[in-house]
Amino acid sequence: MNIGQQALKLHYKLKGKISIVPKIKIKNRRQLSLIYTPGVAAVSQYLAKNKNNLSDYTIKSNSVAVVSDGSAVLGLGNIGPEGALPVMEGKCLIFKSFANIDAFPIVLSTQDPDEIIKTVVAIAPGFGGINLEDITAPKCFYIEEVLKKQLDIPVVHDDQWGTATVVLAALINGLKVVNKKIDQIKIVVLGAGAAGSAVVKILSAFGGKNILVCDRQGIIYQERKGNSPEKEGLAKIANPNQEKGDLAFALKKADVLIGVSGANLVTASMAASMNKQAIIFAMANPYPEIRPDVAKKAGVYIFASGRSDFPNQVNNALVFPGIFRGALNHKVKKITLKMLIQAAQNLASLVKNPTAKKIVPSIFDKGVVNAVAKAIK
Amino acid sequence: MNIGQQALKLHYKLKGKISIVPKIKIKNRRQLSLIYTPGVAAVSQYLAKNKNNLSDYTIKSNSVAVVSDGSAVLGLGNIGPEGALPVMEGKCLIFKSFANIDAFPIVLSTQDPDEIIKTVVAIAPGFGGINLEDITAPKCFYIEEVLKKQLDIPVVHDDQWGTATVVLAALINGLKVVNKKIDQIKIVVLGAGAAGSAVVKILSAFGGKNILVCDRQGIIYQERKGNSPEKEGLAKIANPNQEKGDLAFALKKADVLIGVSGANLVTASMAASMNKQAIIFAMANPYPEIRPDVAKKAGVYIFASGRSDFPNQVNNALVFPGIFRGALNHKVKKITLKMLIQAAQNLASLVKNPTAKKIVPSIFDKGVVNAVAKAIK
Repeated sequence: MNIGQQALKLHYKLKGKISIVPKIKIKNRRQLSLIYTPGVAAVSQYLAKNKNNLSDYTIKSNSVAVVSDGSAVLGLGNIGPEGALPVMEGKCLIFKSFANIDAFPIVLSTQDPDEIIKTVVAIAPGFGGINLEDITAPKCFYIEEVLKKQLDIPVVHDDQWGTATVVLAALINGLKVVNKKIDQIKIVVLGAGAAGSAVVKILSAFGGKNILVCDRQGIIYQERKGNSPEKEGLAKIANPNQEKGDLAFALKKADVLIGVSGANLVTASMAASMNKQAIIFAMANPYPEIRPDVAKKAGVYIFASGRSDFPNQVNNALVFPGIFRGALNHKVKKITLKMLIQAAQNLASLVKNPTAKKIVPSIFDKGVVNAVAKAIK
Repeated sequence: MNIGQQALKLHYKLKGKISIVPKIKIKNRRQLSLIYTPGVAAVSQYLAKNKNNLSDYTIKSNSVAVVSDGSAVLGLGNIGPEGALPVMEGKCLIFKSFANIDAFPIVLSTQDPDEIIKTVVAIAPGFGGINLEDITAPKCFYIEEVLKKQLDIPVVHDDQWGTATVVLAALINGLKVVNKKIDQIKIVVLGAGAAGSAVVKILSAFGGKNILVCDRQGIIYQERKGNSPEKEGLAKIANPNQEKGDLAFALKKADVLIGVSGANLVTASMAASMNKQAIIFAMANPYPEIRPDVAKKAGVYIFASGRSDFPNQVNNALVFPGIFRGALNHKVKKITLKMLIQAAQNLASLVKNPTAKKIVPSIFDKGVVNAVAKAIK
């Protein structure tokens, strides 16, 4: 059986990867009357009058909704809420396993941006945070922006900010290994969706000067025909010389390629055209932009991907549990780019002596969640 | 400390009465690659194509959303989502403790019926059932009706149907104790909200002939000024002689009073005016329509309430875990009145020799959930 078949078998057996458990056992009427009627009425009345204290008495202290409309699941595209559910459950499992957060999957039967916003606002009172997930660009930008304004709990579109943060952490260490400086290198970001956009923003904020963003039509530049407002914005942040051309052109002499697009878009000859000691993060899931063996043959020095079964797993699972752990611990209402940059630096510093094979800590390293969480305050 | 103070202290300590746990431990990369990327992609692709199999591979097999807008919490009125949350958590705890169901509380920031419907439809794909809770009448009728039509999972407004079912179960045994027949007695239902309306419907369907329903204005009769469509409907089902009058008038020579209204609305003299071997179910939470000691002094033969700390706890907690356990086990998409009547009969039959002090089984009796569940098929 291949890994997909094994996963299907395991999921069929489990019928749900997470479960709800009571934090207190009800053994008798007295206990029942404390957690339910009549005792709970006192708690209800208190909280109705002291709405800001909800986290002190309820699951809101530690709950995160993992919300998806299934419009951009992994690298699989728009496969709807049914396709999204096992991924969201997987995230909830990771939230609990690594950061002790009570996350619950909410998959939506609507893909309309305003209905998504209304739904999330409607269900928000019981949650301590909202993790938006696998929602396609460009609507993900609008949805996140509006929800951040409307809600007083942290809202994070993980495909954007989890990815951007772990990419920055990996790049900090990758550049240490090859002894290059972020403000002196050429970076190509392949993919201008949720992840690509946030990667450009965080790398630029961290000092990246020469960043080319490519989508299906090639390098994005200002006033390119059909640019969305988001892409027009990226063309202003990146591409200082307003270069034009295809991906192969962009990659010539590039020091870094960050792929957040789709399977096998980068050929061996493109990889071979990059600068010496090239770094490739091929993050498309489940199939990366270029396979590690192909990249290595082409002379690429550092290779990373999002997969658990390849070396250098630059996966946002290193980041999202810590972001919400920090936000819940420190009662942070808005996550800022500054916090995320600090989180990336903390994460990078966990690898004492980075090498080409080890630029990020393992998700199983105990310090990971805390390193990220302590930056979110 | 009184029970309310104890409950507050306990809730402050727990900070949430339920928690999420992984059903599988992630110890290494291999396991991670099965439950998350890349392995989960195969599950996502399979489910996107086989939407009807979602329950076989995900939490939908066993998940129930406990949804409230906080507009009618216990007997406390419209105290909003914050006031509702500890009650919904309590229900989720009961769902798990007694029926092994993974229920999650969803409290809403909207109280608009159409927005509530839209929200529930939007979040429904990941749930195996919807338990509507503490939503005020008359909008609860409309919301439940529309959701039942729009969704292909069971939708139950527990304040209606959980209450109605447990009342019928208790009345079946109560009437055995006093040796009266349902079609020959006078029943007064005090309260024409969610619970009162459903109680009238189930008692009528079970053979009740002479049922008077009272609200704040007294007995409901046809074409009474200001009747809502729901109340007009009740006046057609009940009140065969179209009697008019106040509660005190209604209760004269009544055999049964079912109170689903508010605290202390029934006086000692009203109780004393009832027929011999009178039965009172004073179900308002947390404060019943009449206290058990007052009722007893007035000559009432059987007294029951919804509280855990009084005898004869006729609480819908005896019913709702079993309804959803049955629906999930038997993949039932719509819960019918016929199923609920069977559930009430099964529940009643668990008490082999009913007495005035014991007309319903204890929620701690092992057979309760199964007795109800086996009727829901």
